[in-house]
Order: sequence, then C-alpha cells, then structure tokens
Amino acid sequence: MPDDPLRVGVVGVGVMGADHARRLAGRIANATLAAIADPDRDRAQELATQLGGVRVHADPLELIRDDGVDAVLLASPGSVHTEQLLACIERGTPVLCEKPLTMDSESSLQVIEAERAAGRSLIQVGFMRRFDPEYMRLKQLLDSGRWGRTLLLHQTHRNLTVPNPHFRSEMIVRDSLVHEVDCARFLLGEEIASVQVISPTPTRHALKGVVDPQVSIFRMASGAVVTNEVFVNSRTGYEVRCEAVAETGSAIIGRPSSGIYTTGVGPDGGEGTWGGGIDPDYRTRFERAYDIEVQAWVDASRRGELVGPTSWDGYASTVVCTAGMESLSTGAPVDVVLRAPVTRT
Amino acid sequence: MPDDPLRVGVVGVGVMGADHARRLAGRIANATLAAIADPDRDRAQELATQLGGVRVHADPLELIRDDGVDAVLLASPGSVHTEQLLACIERGTPVLCEKPLTMDSESSLQVIEAERAAGRSLIQVGFMRRFDPEYMRLKQLLDSGRWGRTLLLHQTHRNLTVPNPHFRSEMIVRDSLVHEVDCARFLLGEEIASVQVISPTPTRHALKGVVDPQVSIFRMASGAVVTNEVFVNSRTGYEVRCEAVAETGSAIIGRPSSGIYTTGVGPDGGEGTWGGGIDPDYRTRFERAYDIEVQAWVDASRRGELVGPTSWDGYASTVVCTAGMESLSTGAPVDVVLRAPVTRT
Amino acid sequence: MPDDPLRVGVVGVGVMGADHARRLAGRIANATLAAIADPDRDRAQELATQLGGVRVHADPLELIRDDGVDAVLLASPGSVHTEQLLACIERGTPVLCEKPLTMDSESSLQVIEAERAAGRSLIQVGFMRRFDPEYMRLKQLLDSGRWGRTLLLHQTHRNLTVPNPHFRSEMIVRDSLVHEVDCARFLLGEEIASVQVISPTPTRHALKGVVDPQVSIFRMASGAVVTNEVFVNSRTGYEVRCEAVAETGSAIIGRPSSGIYTTGVGPDGGEGTWGGGIDPDYRTRFERAYDIEVQAWVDASRRGELVGPTSWDGYASTVVCTAGMESLSTGAPVDVVLRAPVTRT
Amino acid sequence: MPDDPLRVGVVGVGVMGADHARRLAGRIANATLAAIADPDRDRAQELATQLGGVRVHADPLELIRDDGVDAVLLASPGSVHTEQLLACIERGTPVLCEKPLTMDSESSLQVIEAERAAGRSLIQVGFMRRFDPEYMRLKQLLDSGRWGRTLLLHQTHRNLTVPNPHFRSEMIVRDSLVHEVDCARFLLGEEIASVQVISPTPTRHALKGVVDPQVSIFRMASGAVVTNEVFVNSRTGYEVRCEAVAETGSAIIGRPSSGIYTTGVGPDGGEGTWGGGIDPDYRTRFERAYDIEVQAWVDASRRGELVGPTSWDGYASTVVCTAGMESLSTGAPVDVVLRAPVTRT
Repeated sequence: MPDDPLRVGVVGVGVMGADHARRLAGRIANATLAAIADPDRDRAQELATQLGGVRVHADPLELIRDDGVDAVLLASPGSVHTEQLLACIERGTPVLCEKPLTMDSESSLQVIEAERAAGRSLIQVGFMRRFDPEYMRLKQLLDSGRWGRTLLLHQTHRNLTVPNPHFRSEMIVRDSLVHEVDCARFLLGEEIASVQVISPTPTRHALKGVVDPQVSIFRMASGAVVTNEVFVNSRTGYEVRCEAVAETGSAIIGRPSSGIYTTGVGPDGGEGTWGGGIDPDYRTRFERAYDIEVQAWVDASRRGELVGPTSWDGYASTVVCTAGMESLSTGAPVDVVLRAPVTRT
Repeated sequence: MPDDPLRVGVVGVGVMGADHARRLAGRIANATLAAIADPDRDRAQELATQLGGVRVHADPLELIRDDGVDAVLLASPGSVHTEQLLACIERGTPVLCEKPLTMDSESSLQVIEAERAAGRSLIQVGFMRRFDPEYMRLKQLLDSGRWGRTLLLHQTHRNLTVPNPHFRSEMIVRDSLVHEVDCARFLLGEEIASVQVISPTPTRHALKGVVDPQVSIFRMASGAVVTNEVFVNSRTGYEVRCEAVAETGSAIIGRPSSGIYTTGVGPDGGEGTWGGGIDPDYRTRFERAYDIEVQAWVDASRRGELVGPTSWDGYASTVVCTAGMESLSTGAPVDVVLRAPVTRT
Repeated sequence: MPDDPLRVGVVGVGVMGADHARRLAGRIANATLAAIADPDRDRAQELATQLGGVRVHADPLELIRDDGVDAVLLASPGSVHTEQLLACIERGTPVLCEKPLTMDSESSLQVIEAERAAGRSLIQVGFMRRFDPEYMRLKQLLDSGRWGRTLLLHQTHRNLTVPNPHFRSEMIVRDSLVHEVDCARFLLGEEIASVQVISPTPTRHALKGVVDPQVSIFRMASGAVVTNEVFVNSRTGYEVRCEAVAETGSAIIGRPSSGIYTTGVGPDGGEGTWGGGIDPDYRTRFERAYDIEVQAWVDASRRGELVGPTSWDGYASTVVCTAGMESLSTGAPVDVVLRAPVTRT
Repeated sequence: MPDDPLRVGVVGVGVMGADHARRLAGRIANATLAAIADPDRDRAQELATQLGGVRVHADPLELIRDDGVDAVLLASPGSVHTEQLLACIERGTPVLCEKPLTMDSESSLQVIEAERAAGRSLIQVGFMRRFDPEYMRLKQLLDSGRWGRTLLLHQTHRNLTVPNPHFRSEMIVRDSLVHEVDCARFLLGEEIASVQVISPTPTRHALKGVVDPQVSIFRMASGAVVTNEVFVNSRTGYEVRCEAVAETGSAIIGRPSSGIYTTGVGPDGGEGTWGGGIDPDYRTRFERAYDIEVQAWVDASRRGELVGPTSWDGYASTVVCTAGMESLSTGAPVDVVLRAPVTRT
C-alpha cells in the first residue's frame, strides 16, 4: 500500500457531510481530511476550526480542483451532483457520492457515460447498507447457496418521524424506498423488472395527502418477489429489517433485539417489561456501516480501485424509483426499463 | 352451569378427527366422547376400543341423530359438510365444524340460511387460531386502541412439506391462505375488499406447475393492507407468524423462539450454534389453541350459546379464497363480493 | 380407563385452593369437584355456589372421610398437613399435596413411613414445575445425553414483591428456594449434598433485617454445582429461569421473551422500545403447568397409580431448606443429611 | 488536536500483537505503525513486509528507545512486562499493556510506584471489554441510577476449547477469570473484598486434574455479590455474558442472539432449527472493542492523557486472581488485601 494517506475533501457539510468530515478526521486510517466546501461558509468555517487544519472552500468546484485533494466525498444536495461528479471525472478524482447519484435517469446516464469515456471507475455511490456487517453476512449466506435459490425478500423500513412540512408521498419512494431498491438488487444480484406501490389508508400522523405507510412489491428479473413496507412516521424509531426466504432456509437481519436486554419495573409501576430500546435514527443503526464504507473507499482509492456500489447502481435505483413514483399514482405494476447500451461496470 | 357433561359425537376420525376424539376423551372438562362415525369402520372401531365405551356409527347421519349425542364435532371431508351441517341444524345440535364450512359460497349461504331459519346460532367454524393465546393477546392489544388504528398486517405461513402428489397451486389458497384470511378478518374486525395473488418463481421442491411460495395482498374494507407469504415446502418446519403495524407501535407473534433456548456444539464439530427447534406441524404449534377452542365450544354449547367464528366467517373466507384462486391465474387484484341479504350473526 | 370421573375434594380454598377448585370444575377431564372444605365457611360456601353442586365441609377431616370423595387436593396451610395426610393415608385416598409436605423433616418422615406401611404410594407433592412444558423439555434434553453430563445449573427466581409485613429472610429459603431445590433434584436426578446461602447487601425494598436477594450454591451428590438467585422484591415481575450447562451444550428456559413481541412509542414519547411484558405472578407463568399437573394426577389416580414428585421429594426438599436456613445465618456450606432407612419410592 | 499522527511501536507479534499491528496499520486514525519487535525475527520481518515501511527490532527495549516511536503497545508475554514497562516509564512513553500488567502483585506495585514517581499516568491495561459497546451501555445504565443500586452480577465466560497440553486449573483463574474480575470492578465501580472458587466435577473434556468449569463468588466492598462461571472447554464457542441485577431492573449483555437470525432445514433433514452461530473466539466477539480501545488510546496519548483501565486496575486484578488461586485449592472464601499506600489514580 502506498505510504501517504489519502487527502479527502468533503463537499457539503450538513448533517451527513459533517458526520463524514468528523469520521475522516477521527476514525479512518490512512486518510486525512484536507478540505471542506459548503455554500454556508460560516458552518464550514466552524467545522474546520473544530477539526483543525482543514482548508475551507466556498465553491465546491474549487475544492474538487484543489491540488491538495486526492479524493472527494460528495454530501451536497442531489440537484448539484451532476455538475460536481462531472468535474471529478474530468480530473480523474475518486468520489464517494451520497445518494442519489443524480436527480433523474438522463443525468445519471450522462455521468455513467462520462465515467466510461474516462476509462476508469471513479464513482462509489453511498449505499452504506452494503457495508453493514449484518447485510454483508446475509449476502454471504445467500450467495453460499447453502439454502438453494433465494425466493423472496421481505423488507421493512421505518422512521421515527418526518419533520419536513413539505413532505410528499413521492419522497417516500425516492428517499426511503431507494435503499430497499438497492438492497434487493444487492442481495439478489439482479435487476428489478417491475415495481408496484400499494397505498394503505395513511396513519393519522401523516401530513394531509401523504400516503404513509406504503407497501411495495418488486418482481426481480429471475421471478423472485420482494415485499416492502416503508413507514416514515412509525413513532417508534428507526427499524430496518430484511428477511430472505430461500428454498431450505430463511434469515432475518435488523431485528431490534441485539445488544443490551433489560427487564425492569413498568412505567408508572405497572406491568414489568423485558426488551430494549430502538435506535432513533440511521446514524446509530448504521454508524458502523458508514465507518466500514468510508474505510473501504479510502483503501480502494489509494490502490486506484473501486469497491462497492457503482454509478450503474445509482442509475438503476433512480430508474426503479421513477417507476415506483408512477405506480404510486395508480397502484398498478410499472415495468422498469434500463437503458441497454450502458453495460454494467 | 348444567350438571351433566356434554355428550359429543365426532364425525370423521382421520388425523384431525382422531386428535379431537382423544382430546374430548382425555383433556376436556364437562364433556364425554359419546360416539364416533367414520366410513372406515375398522379405524373407527380401533379408536373406540382405545378410548373405551364409545359408540361407533358407520353412517355420520346416524351419529347426528343419535339421542345420546348432544353436540357434534365435524372432522369429515369438506365435500360432505353441507349435508351433515343441515342435518345438525335440523335437530338443533351445536356443531364445531372443521374448515372449510362447505366447498363453495353457494352451499355456505344455504347453510347460513338454514341456520337463520332455525333461529339459533349452532355452527362454530374450526378456525382454531382465534383461540391461540398469542393471537388472542394480539387481538386484545389491537382492540385496546393503545397504538391507534392498525394499518398493516404481515403474515407468514410455512409448512415443512406437502406430501400429496396431486397437489395444485389452488390448494395453497384454499387450504393454507384460508387461515390467513380468517386471521386478517379476525384481527382487523372487518371484511376483505380485494385479494391479489402474486406468483414468484417456485422453489425447486414444488411439484411441476405448482406456484409455491405465493405472495398475496389483501386490501381491507377500511383501506388497511395485509401482505401474506404462504410457502408449503419450506423444508424447515411449521412457521406461522403475524406482524401487526399500528400508528404508534407494532407487534409480532409466532416467532419460533419461545420456550427452550440452547447453545451447542456445531454439527460435525463445526461452528457452535444458539437457538432451538421448529415445530414440524400444526399439531404441536396449535395444540393448546385446539384445547382451548374445544373447551370453549363445550362450555358455550352447555349454556346454549355460541362463541368463536361463525358460519358467516366460514362463508366469507370461502368467498375470499374463491377470489384468490381467480387472482392466482392473472396476478391482478380481484374484488371480494359478499352476499348482501345475509346479515352477520 | 375406568368409566367414572374421579370425585375430588379440595381442602383449603385460599388463593391456591380456589384456583384448583375452579380448575377441577372447568378445565380437567374425567374429574368432578365433589366437595370443598375450609375453616372460613363463608368463603367456602360462596365458592361452592359459584361452581354449582359442590358439598361444603367446615372440617377438613370430614371431607377426607366423605364417601363421595375419591381423592383429595390439599391446599391448606403446611402446619395442618401432617394430620390431614395421615387421615388420607388411613383411608387409602390419593392426595395432591401443595408444598410443603409438612413443616419439618421429622413429620415428613412420619408421613412417609405411614405411606410405606399402607403399602401404596398415595401422595403427590405439588411441585408443579415438573409439569411445565419447558422444564419437561429441558429434563428430556438433559436425560437424552446428547450433550454429555450436566455440569452446572444457574437458577433465577424473582417475585414482583412480598406484601407480607411479617416476612423474614428464612421464608425466602423455605417458600421460594424450595422450588429451586426441587428443580435441581428433578433436573439432575440426584440429591443435594450441601447448601450454602450467601447474603448480599439487601435491596432498599426489603423489610428491615430481611436478606433479599439471596444467592445460594448447591453441591450435588455427583459434584455438579447449582447457583441460585432468589429475589422476592424485584419490582419487575415473576421471572423463573434455569440454565443448564452440560459438557457440549447449554439450555435456557424461562426467558421472559416468549409470545407476543412488540415495538412501540416510548413512554412520554421518549425512546421507542422493543420487547414485551413480564408475568406478574406464578399463576400466569405456571397456569399450564398446574393444568397438566392436576390432569396427570387425576389420570394416574383413576388408574391407581402415582406420577410426579412423591413424599420423598417433599421430605428431601424440607431437609435441604432446613440446612439452607442454617447456612443463611453463617454464610458457610451446610451438609444435607437424609435419613437412610427410608428408601426412595 | 496535534497535527502529526502518533507513531506506535508494537512489542510482541504473536496472535494478539500481530492483530494489533494490522489494526494500527489499517483501521486506526491518526496513528502510524512505526516499528515492531519480537524475539522471533522472521515472524516480525514477514509481518513488517506485509504492512510496508515498518522498522523491525529484535530487542524490545531497543524499540522502546527508538526515537521514531511515540507510544508502545505491549503484547509480549507477561513475564517480561515489568522490565519493558519500567523502560517505557523511564522515557515517559505511553503504553497500552495487554494483561496481565505483571506476573505478581509485588512487581505490579513496583510499576505503579515508578509511574507515580514519573508524575504522569502512562499505562493503560488492555481490558478491552471496557470499550465494548455493550459493556459501555451496561455501565452507563447502572451508573444512571435509574434502577437503584446494583445488587448482583451473574457472569458467564466460555471458551470453545483449550489446546494447551500444559494447561492447569490456576490458568482459568489467572487468564480467564481475570476479565470477569475487571468487569465486576468496572461495572460496580468498587473493589472486590473476597473471592471464593468452587470446583464442580469437571467435564470429560478437561485435561486430567484440571477443574473446568469453575464457579466463583466475589463479594464486593459494598456487599454486592457476583457469581461467575468460567468454562474453557464448552465446545460450543466463545460466550461472554453478563447479567446485572439492580433494585428495580436487570440487564443482560452478550446473549449470543444478535445479528443474523436464521431458520433452516435440520441437520440430516431432521427437525428444522431457528437461531444462529456462535463466535468461535474472542477476536470476533471483541473485534470492535479492540478497535475502539486502540483508537481511544491513540487519541488520549496524542493529547497527553490516559483513558481506560490503569496500572492500578492491573494490580488489583492480579491481587484478586492470586486470592482466587488460593481459594481454588480449598473452596473457602479468601480475602483480597490491596496495598494501602498506593492511592487509586
């Protein structure tokens, strides 16, 4: 392995980007946090001061062109990804791009084509679950063939609550279901052929007009079937579970029962309880997955390689979610059509 | 409560009927097993001898008309239920009828109308899960309103294997899904409005042409949604699970983790394991539910009352399964139309 | 099996006895509740009226001598057991005797000798855990030898609270630890050689001067070791757990995690939780064990046999608890000396 | 935080030391692996080549005096710790010292006194469980006082097997129980007052004359009681569990049930099973604890601070284990006497 640590620049230091900056500064080997960029200059400056010796750019493109930056972690809004990704590709800079790759399939294809023209895989998409130890073990188990072919997945995705007052039904598909889309593609190793989104009567905690929870069905290319529950106002916490059903066995990951287990006096002295607490958000649940993801990206980037989900995975998930949003309005299955000329990297 | 025990006759002493006969003879209070009837006279005679002092009838109708029989437990094939049920109704004899009520909705309606004409509810249908302590607690929890309205159910139904060489896809709907149909109606307290059956690529253990597993979606009258997996060749055992998702909480019953929990040396000295065994069939899993069901039926019959699922529940489940079989061939949702004139008892 | 049901008389209708009376009247096959006796005549009369057609005796010995009583369930205070047991033995009446057999080892031996002189085993002691499905499965597993010899047991016994204002440390040994004594003897199939009771600093919920919790160590005749926690003011509920450690595997029963499993909004809208409730008392936890115990006793009594724990088991547990009370005052191990001439039945 | 990474030297590159070297090279931020030392020069050289650019010393003291080494991780045999620790103290070099601190209490005190004389806490002892997320959460929960005072701990420590043909009973106390000693001191925040080791009849897998499993009792200074099972030939895997019992609640960590949960066809097509696998050794179970421990040590060392277990903790655990070895031969409790003049750091 080369001697010098990878000098990383982080673009966008909102909640997610700031987390990544702190991770790079304090928990990742063989990398240094070299620079950060954010339109909110104060926020960027404050973080840089905290972390010590980090350059601040107001302009993300400036950061990308900074000669002291070997690799870029993109945590900016999806709407500016296309421009920033193209700038990275132009310079041959490895990128870890938080999802979505871009906002629509056209621009995603444009990025993929630029990357192919550059002759090297440079973009890893931030589907961090692929680095979660439980998902990795499940993938390994399914791939081992010990239980034959995988027939079904049942996926559950619950958020505590959605504070955004402008939240719309489509955002459940685009921002939450997209993770289940990637997990299905990852675990089963194949594309989604069609998607159907079913709209139950919503919870009273949903904003007026928002369909929450949603039930979706994916039919995979091979005929395997995936059921999904996405519920973003569960009020109980962040629960991400997956059950895989194969020909002679099944496996569940993400049951909120790991770790500390308690029994205790009941609330108000009532019935005693056994159990434990539920992670309130993704940062606790997937903290370790993020660490492993970023370390793997740093290690691969230093070797000039790419591991993990690619720009094709970003494109494919965007196409599926676009189909899902169409199905949301009718309840009927919608076929997923992936552009032929682009071969999977 | 009246002093005399209820004298029960059991019609049909195959696996299920013989179990019930033994239960009545040895585990149920305030009842006696008075008579059994089965076309296979030898099998009936052998069982009668084992259990001691039990009359044997070759003709089920003769048993029904036996003056020493106060109540009838029907465990004969569904195809002869109509005639036997009508005979019971004619005599005013309480019946515990194993599912299905009858083979089609027309005959089910005929039975319901005869019962209504008789002016008294006489038929309890053998949906034993309603008496399972876990289902009862789940029902109680959902009805308590503690967690608001119930939005979704996720139901799983797995059998070890299906030995029948004439098994067909429709039988999964009719014989297995029917239990999930009744559970959905019971737990949510409302009718199913439509049913959609989705056909994944089958397991290699399915007979040629048989769709196994199957995924089904029920849309309830209120807009709640139910997802179902039925998999009759899981090779792992009998797993019946239900997860209910309400506005501020969820609950799972039937996880195969109760009772004894072991850690042990691995097979062939390999990796050690933690966990336990899975019930191979419904008789172990629902043994206690059957005991409670039959005791409740005996107690209610002695009081001249009826508790538990009624002939209407038998009819409604038949109509849903008929719609399910139609959906099985197309994959599209099929509406469930229940006959209006019959009011729910 | 004989045709007539067993006519049972219940002596003592406090909480436990009244439960048994209701059980015999409504849940046990091939038995009738013939009579009840209690010094509190009003309480007895009220219960008799509820249950219908049950004779009431003020004098327990009168009930024992009632010609319409085939068998007696003794739920009277331990201090009157000797006299009542001897009266049963004199008439050759089978007895199910709630623990303790008698209040001290001398009187227990006297009962055993009277029973032996009568030439027939008549007394079953009410150690109901031997009929609990989980304990039965554990016993079966250990006896199977699949995991070699059993080396250790770890037993936990927690009660919600002890309301008795006259409660003393010795009562933890005599009334609670006694169940663990019997379980150790039952599961390991051998006698206890010595007992050591260790006194931690008590919970603030213990009465002044009462040692609660207590930790005890049994050394078995074979050299196996048993650790016990008894904690009668745990404030969380009734938890009875046992872990057996054998040469190549271990097993836990009684984890409070079976049945319904929920996730839900946190108390006061705080962190969400997963888990379930804990049985508040023994009646819920061991309801089924009591049903099975009483049914087994009825069935065996009708055949003129005895199954389950015997008077010897009652005697041996009394001797161990007496030694335990001695150890409680010193913290040192005390040897258990069982009287030689009495051979185990 | 200072800009330069901490240059770490690793002394001893057997299984544990090599793991740490790889950890420092590939998973720890703000540190570099500068040098390694091992009497087995070939083994050291091979590892250095693998990891790239790492200096190799044959003499550990040479490594300690290497000007390019800012901090030392000691993974050499316990018998050479005293000399190496004193050399580190002399140079003011921070050390992470794998347990034991030294081989006896005298030498441990000598090290503590040298450290005090140097005027700065330099030694962190490698009790990695204090950095395990589950132990940390348990500690936090107990310290929160939410459940009142902690009354009891029940600790379980099982190893798959012990391959060492020279293994002796005392090594269970010194090498395995020592971790439970530290956990009890850590979780309860107080010293152990006495220790009693009880010897069950051993498993048939124990070497002749070796007492395995062992049961130990700690009485804490406050009167809390700790029960321990150590079983080093369990044949099932590495199981480290701890249950804490407080006045109004209890908590269990380390149940081997976290992560992936499977159901599957039974071995040889027999009864299906639910559950999962058990970690075979400490490296899997505590991998994350080691990462967190080393990162915390690196971070603190760069700030000139010390977090985690100190030389006093190393000394105290040695004294307790010495008392435990004495108790092993008699079965009686042995008091733990800590040297007064040394105040806890």
